[in-house]
Amino acid sequence: MPDKNIVFVGIIASSSSLDQLVISSGYIAVQDGKITKTGSTKEFDELEKAGEFSSYKVVKLSRDQFIIPGFVDCHTHAPQFPNIGLGLDRPLLEWLAKYTFPLEKKYSDTEFAAKVYDQVVQRLLKNGTTTACYFGSLHVDGTLELVKSAIKHHQRALIGKVSMNKENDAGYYNDTKKELEEVETFIKKVLAYQNELVEPVVTPRFAVSCDKELMDGLACIANKYNCRIQSHISENLSEIEYVLETNPKCATYGDVYDKSGILNNKCIMAHAVHLTDKELSLLPKKGVSVAHCPASNTRLKSGLCPVRRIINANITVGLGTDVSGGDNASILDAIRRTMDVSMCLEMQGSPNCALNWKEAFYLATLGGAKALNLDHKIGNFEVGKDFDALLVDVYSTGGQIDKYEGALPTTTDEYAVELLQKFIFVGDDRNIAQVYVKGEKVKDIL
Amino acid sequence: MPDKNIVFVGIIASSSSLDQLVISSGYIAVQDGKITKTGSTKEFDELEKAGEFSSYKVVKLSRDQFIIPGFVDCHTHAPQFPNIGLGLDRPLLEWLAKYTFPLEKKYSDTEFAAKVYDQVVQRLLKNGTTTACYFGSLHVDGTLELVKSAIKHHQRALIGKVSMNKENDAGYYNDTKKELEEVETFIKKVLAYQNELVEPVVTPRFAVSCDKELMDGLACIANKYNCRIQSHISENLSEIEYVLETNPKCATYGDVYDKSGILNNKCIMAHAVHLTDKELSLLPKKGVSVAHCPASNTRLKSGLCPVRRIINANITVGLGTDVSGGDNASILDAIRRTMDVSMCLEMQGSPNCALNWKEAFYLATLGGAKALNLDHKIGNFEVGKDFDALLVDVYSTGGQIDKYEGALPTTTDEYAVELLQKFIFVGDDRNIAQVYVKGEKVKDIL
Ligand SMILES: [Zn+2]
Ligand SMILES: [Zn+2]
Repeated sequence: MPDKNIVFVGIIASSSSLDQLVISSGYIAVQDGKITKTGSTKEFDELEKAGEFSSYKVVKLSRDQFIIPGFVDCHTHAPQFPNIGLGLDRPLLEWLAKYTFPLEKKYSDTEFAAKVYDQVVQRLLKNGTTTACYFGSLHVDGTLELVKSAIKHHQRALIGKVSMNKENDAGYYNDTKKELEEVETFIKKVLAYQNELVEPVVTPRFAVSCDKELMDGLACIANKYNCRIQSHISENLSEIEYVLETNPKCATYGDVYDKSGILNNKCIMAHAVHLTDKELSLLPKKGVSVAHCPASNTRLKSGLCPVRRIINANITVGLGTDVSGGDNASILDAIRRTMDVSMCLEMQGSPNCALNWKEAFYLATLGGAKALNLDHKIGNFEVGKDFDALLVDVYSTGGQIDKYEGALPTTTDEYAVELLQKFIFVGDDRNIAQVYVKGEKVKDIL
Repeated sequence: MPDKNIVFVGIIASSSSLDQLVISSGYIAVQDGKITKTGSTKEFDELEKAGEFSSYKVVKLSRDQFIIPGFVDCHTHAPQFPNIGLGLDRPLLEWLAKYTFPLEKKYSDTEFAAKVYDQVVQRLLKNGTTTACYFGSLHVDGTLELVKSAIKHHQRALIGKVSMNKENDAGYYNDTKKELEEVETFIKKVLAYQNELVEPVVTPRFAVSCDKELMDGLACIANKYNCRIQSHISENLSEIEYVLETNPKCATYGDVYDKSGILNNKCIMAHAVHLTDKELSLLPKKGVSVAHCPASNTRLKSGLCPVRRIINANITVGLGTDVSGGDNASILDAIRRTMDVSMCLEMQGSPNCALNWKEAFYLATLGGAKALNLDHKIGNFEVGKDFDALLVDVYSTGGQIDKYEGALPTTTDEYAVELLQKFIFVGDDRNIAQVYVKGEKVKDIL
């Protein structure tokens, strides 16, 4: 049973924009999962003295702890988690055929699906992912097991049954009519849960596995139910070549989706590594967001995504782990690799494109919330938003961050910033002591 | 008290060369810390039946465990560990002045040094680093505390008191004569321990902080005591520019060291990011090895080191964490970033330069052993070598690798390779269940 009223006091850090990290000592008051009041430590002391928090549970952080917004994973494949770390010496299309499709086919078995997805959701929550935007598999019932797991473990989740109608060697696709019916069935079943944390997402896998007829139909369904849409775009050069060959009337990959009405302000596209200038102007015009997935882009040799260029084109960007093309189920890793990849591009001659840790942290929190159209609810600690948050304990026992007495600065401001840096660069799930989703504690290792 | 005779039976993996990973079920017999016999599981069964191992402790690995050689960290800075993760938004020379030198100066306090180094050595052992090549600080007594910690915790360690004689803002340098005397004092004190795991290393910081007179003297001392030499070379473009300006008679950075007799087959140089063709032919001629430090090269925006090109020039390469320019104290991270950086170079147009996980694993073990001139003792499991090894438990409780029943292949060969991949891509210190140095168990979380 969650605490109805709870107030956290200590170091609090969150982003208000890409270049604005706010970090200071203060408090956040939470009622029924929503943030009702925030302010400085001094204000907390005064309010507490006045009896304002007499009905609250008061959580006072230690000097080595802080609160940040929960991480948002804008793109990951729940059924591929058993393959994490495997087969990463192959390029995208080969890897899909050899590793991915054969595994995904197993989720016709709902018992297998239920067991895997229960582990997947718990793994992400452990890693501080309070919101995940998931690709499921082709199967309605299999993917409904993911919905059940998210509800059971109280994770905020956008979940898509994957749509594919083009033949492949694995025999992993549907007939168009059946597919469109199943997508509607899936959406209706998810909506029937009336769970405010979980929503269905229309999910054409990508233009390689969906033809225009299917995508036209999916766009209609998305409109009908006012659903988000997710897919992949311009991940890999051979993929782009194939898409343009099979869609000779389209000048760009983006056009292929646009012609089916897939591109709108509820659409999030993964990768976008090789966008053309035309696409860089098309996507923001349509309101499409991008999930940047640096781990899989490097592991599958897809390319170095020019995130700064995408941001500068006024496209909203969040981060994705893209398991199992990505080999790490933590957004902390995506933060670090966002810095790595952008830094590599800068070192290779693209000036000013490196993203620093504060910018990468923004993408992992508020950026992701915006990319998923959830920033009215989550992403930072504005009054009125839901309390999705991580309580970070920098020197937690057993973790990778050692406390070296007498080495760090002593002024509070510098100390707080250095604590956050330690976590961002060196921390892992062992430092994520508590995780809250809409005020409910879903992890506690304190 | 270590077991005198011990035999391990199960999956064993090690490299015999850059492109040769050997992985199979078998056994390794260890007597007094040395490998005396190895063979297949079938051979083990026969020998055991014949009573060969009656005086041995027999360790039978589970299906999810395997043995690999201990990791070799060819380059790290012990005194900088308290700064790990901090200040990484600055370029090399600025970062040295603002973050590094002020911290290193504190190691004039031997009590502080003793406390920090005890944590550093234990951190590296936890992470599976059985051999480390350390930079200490300018201080003899401070750096002797690192020697004591390595001996106390039974880590194989090459340790250098850092030499610097050029003025800097932090006042962190020595007069030349005093410095040369102190280096000899340090070497003599380390040798006096007569500890077979720990050796002194002559350590000119780099040509920016050492003039020719000092380096000439250091080269003499290294010859006199037959010591290894370690330093930094060509990490960063401004550094190279400065070195060439201050050494107008030298055509390359390598020449500066060569003129002082620093370059020989007991010399290991960190970074080598921007070597010229001349240096790529000079270094192997002299027998110099390179410690590749991908984390710090990216974090400090130094450049993308073309490791494949260095290897192809017949230079021996090992991996280094280079804390705290590097933000990760684990060689597992160095393995991953070696893949990342080489892949980035390939994606940016240098063909065939990506290193795969087997090659990166080689660099972390046998490559490192060769780079440190220790491959007659460590690096793989040849009979006669010391047993420096990790017992890896892939699905250890609490770790990042989840076991998904029914998802992995069942044939033993494929299974073993996939286990190793999971560890290399997804594992961390929690999967390193036991660590052995010269047969002695220095970590055990089983
Ligand atoms: Zn994907
Ligand atoms: Zn270094």
